[in-house]
Amino acid sequence: MTPRKTDFPLDQCRCHLETGPIVLVGSQWQTERNLMVMGWHMMLGFTPAHFGCLITAANHSHRLVRESRECTINIPTLELADAVVGVGNSDGDALDKFDAFGLTPASGKIVSAPLVEECYASFECRLVDDSQIDRHELFIWEIVKAHVDTSIDLPRTLHYRGHGRFMVAGDEIDRSADFRVQNL
Amino acid sequence: MTPRKTDFPLDQCRCHLETGPIVLVGSQWQTERNLMVMGWHMMLGFTPAHFGCLITAANHSHRLVRESRECTINIPTLELADAVVGVGNSDGDALDKFDAFGLTPASGKIVSAPLVEECYASFECRLVDDSQIDRHELFIWEIVKAHVDTSIDLPRTLHYRGHGRFMVAGDEIDRSADFRVQNL
Repeated sequence: MTPRKTDFPLDQCRCHLETGPIVLVGSQWQTERNLMVMGWHMMLGFTPAHFGCLITAANHSHRLVRESRECTINIPTLELADAVVGVGNSDGDALDKFDAFGLTPASGKIVSAPLVEECYASFECRLVDDSQIDRHELFIWEIVKAHVDTSIDLPRTLHYRGHGRFMVAGDEIDRSADFRVQNL
Repeated sequence: MTPRKTDFPLDQCRCHLETGPIVLVGSQWQTERNLMVMGWHMMLGFTPAHFGCLITAANHSHRLVRESRECTINIPTLELADAVVGVGNSDGDALDKFDAFGLTPASGKIVSAPLVEECYASFECRLVDDSQIDRHELFIWEIVKAHVDTSIDLPRTLHYRGHGRFMVAGDEIDRSADFRVQNL
């Protein structure tokens, strides 16, 4: 079933990205588009919502996001595992990954890079700091628009453990009663 | 039960950190030591095993790791949730967090910062790039020694969702049969 995503507050993006799921990076430059699977990322700020990720020069997406200075970050869940494994094990210069793995490109509000319709959360990003690309292959983005299906309270996200194994997000524990208010 | 950690290959650290668990950062500078909970981190390389994390200047640990240029990264699991919540909701300048929350400091092989005995995985880190601390509060470390209890195949790590809620690591799916060999 296609998620029903609506506008989501930028300063809350961490609630979906801090848990460390693998994500699908959407990119577009001129007539080329691509998707890649990526697990090396982190939040770098609440407001603005800064986000860092590593995309090596060996990835077809590297040139596309570097030239366009845009991308989308899309969070898949367990039912998309086949597509995730397919995207991660094919070459963007040899095929269109949306077509090949049954994913639907959707238009963003701000960036030209495609969102992934089937993902429950999608974030539009603009490059704000390119200074660490050559040194660490680290792209630093500002999330400028967030789309989340908030009806999905416990998304079964995928977390990569290496060697073809994924941890699937499990139960939740709510310890908010033990938190200081300013830490919530 | 105390984990039985042994030497672990540095180029495999990603298997434990890439899933995005919250970690306990151990620090020591002169006579001061501290622990903090941290969820904004990412792998930045296999060999050397580079790792980035955000530690704001508001954290008591910031000065300790900046001065000592060392830290330890320790991964707790579900049975340590009380200690994690305690560490995350107290001040390192007001109490010793090891004593206060029943955690045992252990000696590293290379760095002076304390490891957390009760965590199933601990990594000794040296600062290799301080250039992004002032700009992004981003510390870039090299993991120089890794200790993991490999008898724990599916660690029930904690992944922060904000607002006092943690996702607990769930089941695993093994898709290695669908991976290209070079991607494993």
